[in-house]
Amino acid sequence: MQYIVNPAREEWAEILKRPVFEQKDLESRVQPIIEAVKQEGDKALKEFSIKFDQVELEDLRVKASEIEEAIAEVPESLKRAIALARKNIETFHRSQKEEIQIVETQPGIRCWRKSVAISKVGLYIPGGTAPLFSTILMLGVPAAIAGCKEVVLCTPPGKSGKVNPAILYTAHLLGIHSIFKVGGAQAVAAMAYGTESIPQVYKIFGPGNQYVTMAKQLIGKEGVAIDMPAGPSEVAVVIDESANAGFVAADLLSQAEHGIDSQVLLVGNSKERIVEVEQEVEKQVAELPREEIARAAIANSKSIYLEEEDAIIDLINEYAPEHLILSVKNDEEMAEKIFNAGSVFLGHLTPESVGDYASGTNHTLPTNGFAKAYSGVSLDSFVKKITFQKLTEEGIKNLGPAVEEMAEAEELVAHKRAVSIRLESLKS
Amino acid sequence: MQYIVNPAREEWAEILKRPVFEQKDLESRVQPIIEAVKQEGDKALKEFSIKFDQVELEDLRVKASEIEEAIAEVPESLKRAIALARKNIETFHRSQKEEIQIVETQPGIRCWRKSVAISKVGLYIPGGTAPLFSTILMLGVPAAIAGCKEVVLCTPPGKSGKVNPAILYTAHLLGIHSIFKVGGAQAVAAMAYGTESIPQVYKIFGPGNQYVTMAKQLIGKEGVAIDMPAGPSEVAVVIDESANAGFVAADLLSQAEHGIDSQVLLVGNSKERIVEVEQEVEKQVAELPREEIARAAIANSKSIYLEEEDAIIDLINEYAPEHLILSVKNDEEMAEKIFNAGSVFLGHLTPESVGDYASGTNHTLPTNGFAKAYSGVSLDSFVKKITFQKLTEEGIKNLGPAVEEMAEAEELVAHKRAVSIRLESLKS
Repeated sequence: MQYIVNPAREEWAEILKRPVFEQKDLESRVQPIIEAVKQEGDKALKEFSIKFDQVELEDLRVKASEIEEAIAEVPESLKRAIALARKNIETFHRSQKEEIQIVETQPGIRCWRKSVAISKVGLYIPGGTAPLFSTILMLGVPAAIAGCKEVVLCTPPGKSGKVNPAILYTAHLLGIHSIFKVGGAQAVAAMAYGTESIPQVYKIFGPGNQYVTMAKQLIGKEGVAIDMPAGPSEVAVVIDESANAGFVAADLLSQAEHGIDSQVLLVGNSKERIVEVEQEVEKQVAELPREEIARAAIANSKSIYLEEEDAIIDLINEYAPEHLILSVKNDEEMAEKIFNAGSVFLGHLTPESVGDYASGTNHTLPTNGFAKAYSGVSLDSFVKKITFQKLTEEGIKNLGPAVEEMAEAEELVAHKRAVSIRLESLKS
Repeated sequence: MQYIVNPAREEWAEILKRPVFEQKDLESRVQPIIEAVKQEGDKALKEFSIKFDQVELEDLRVKASEIEEAIAEVPESLKRAIALARKNIETFHRSQKEEIQIVETQPGIRCWRKSVAISKVGLYIPGGTAPLFSTILMLGVPAAIAGCKEVVLCTPPGKSGKVNPAILYTAHLLGIHSIFKVGGAQAVAAMAYGTESIPQVYKIFGPGNQYVTMAKQLIGKEGVAIDMPAGPSEVAVVIDESANAGFVAADLLSQAEHGIDSQVLLVGNSKERIVEVEQEVEKQVAELPREEIARAAIANSKSIYLEEEDAIIDLINEYAPEHLILSVKNDEEMAEKIFNAGSVFLGHLTPESVGDYASGTNHTLPTNGFAKAYSGVSLDSFVKKITFQKLTEEGIKNLGPAVEEMAEAEELVAHKRAVSIRLESLKS
């Protein structure tokens, strides 16, 4: 880690810069994949499957028998863990339900807002080395609570043509039956436009590599909604002298193992503790199966000593981390001052990984500084809110003249007349 | 209007198709504008001002003296109308505030979510023929309730170099002091990247022509948030034999006067009433100052007779209109069945224009079928929701083993170890 002591505020922007990935090339590689799927549907998907996944598939859809097999294969202990995580995620996301509240803005004018499920949603779940069944919980649970009628799941098959059993098990558990063996940019395109086998959806969720991310951006430009823009995962950890260096090092490494582009930031007002954390990182990293990845990520990372707590808070708000761990004595007080972050983990006993899996909060969060304007996934992400209004005779009589005045001033006479014609008829 | 009787369901998609606008060319025209602003800041803005607005500006920022003048110029009657609209919009949007609710998902695990204002937001307000001060209310009021610290407003100057007084008055009323005479794609770029005079913001709101829309899409791709994708404005009106043909015609025309690309759809189960509405449209359109525009929009529009009410509801949900007027006897019952729409106007006395200006609901709504996945602007649009969590010793002891199990199954050992190291320390 690069160690920086009391950087001046003018240097922060530079220090906190995230790596920029050149996307021009990527766009020109992904666009033809999208076009092919749009034009040729399943045929294109099967060809891409041979090309990218080295699998020749007869059926894109996962069969009931494959799901049965998966259910049998997942160990009971994992099933119990998934059940507990599911319960917590359900409890937290259910608390986000909004009741309809009718507001009489003035006599005779009732306005209200209703949350309605997005009827068709698509979930993309990466395959590869780490089978992210936890992401199915994070997306499938709120989709179910919202009441999405059609939930489509795409995930790339392994070279055997099979999908990881934990993925199939978790999807099945949540009542997701439309599971397709399709990965990459082509999966995003398939859900955006629909193919012979894969239903078209209105919003696409889920993480993925740079091809998936670019595909989501491109279809997003055409009006298919996406959960949020994505970048490499990241964590910032704030420490003071009360921090446990071993815990903090483990937290930093849990982020670092995601990929060599993972961002890790350590900030604290205790030089002693910062040094200890670095030593602990060195010790712990050697024991990890993903040692190489973690080492590369850590090498790109920064530890920053700042004397003043206010400066630490300002720096964090400027960085806007996806995950923020507050390993400090006054964690609750400090949390009150954070206004740019995806999810915040308070105190010494709340590692990021509890939120990644099972505490109840969502792990699909804004990276890359997007936390300045974006929220993480929540129940809100699976609904849209429709507004309603109804005026009585009293209502339009009270409000009508103001609307006429404003419409006239905006030179929209037909807008005015839609009110006038009603007011006139009420006079007679 | 094109009159269609009982179309078969297979034909609906074709009938409900919105015009597609070719964007390739547009992108290549807008991208250089964005680049120029990014590179040259104010200098580029002033050059574009000469080129596009035919105005040479010394200062981009509107001066206090100009605001004073505007306040004096706006008639008292319009000020009163704006005050009433503001009050209703405030009342409705304030009701959208969310209290923090701490959820104990299981013993020792507390999770909560806090709405925090997006600290810097930008509002784009078109100039041109119709000075849309109403849009300032629709964006500025929720921004103020949310507590956005910096609100920047860009609007193009007229040829005199001045901004419409109603726009300045309304902005001033809402406490928006950073007002800049910049329009078009260049305004969007200026707020996205910042210039010498114009502060950079994290999210950009507001309607605009196709250049503005494309600029928002392009900066959106780079992670600057935008309110929603945009398309031409549209209304669908559902009628039965209880509808007043004159009212309905006025509603259709209030949409049609927006532009020749405005979408108008009339659906009903009374042929008699449909015919009457068409006759009324013919009569009323002749009296409008924007007659030509309205005629062109109406010529592109459709009226559809469907016998069955269920079919009408299905058709509306497939179309997903931005505005939906239910001019029917059973409006409340029908509203319950609508799941794809931006804003719904119930009954015979609720014209769309009340929602455009003053009932309290927001008029920034999803067009182009985006209502299938997007909500209109609300208080939510000006906040992001940060999640928090804190575990006690009991909490991590209860939950830790499940997290270890899941992390192990996802082959993320460092994630597991961040829990294990804490569990081990609690044993000793």
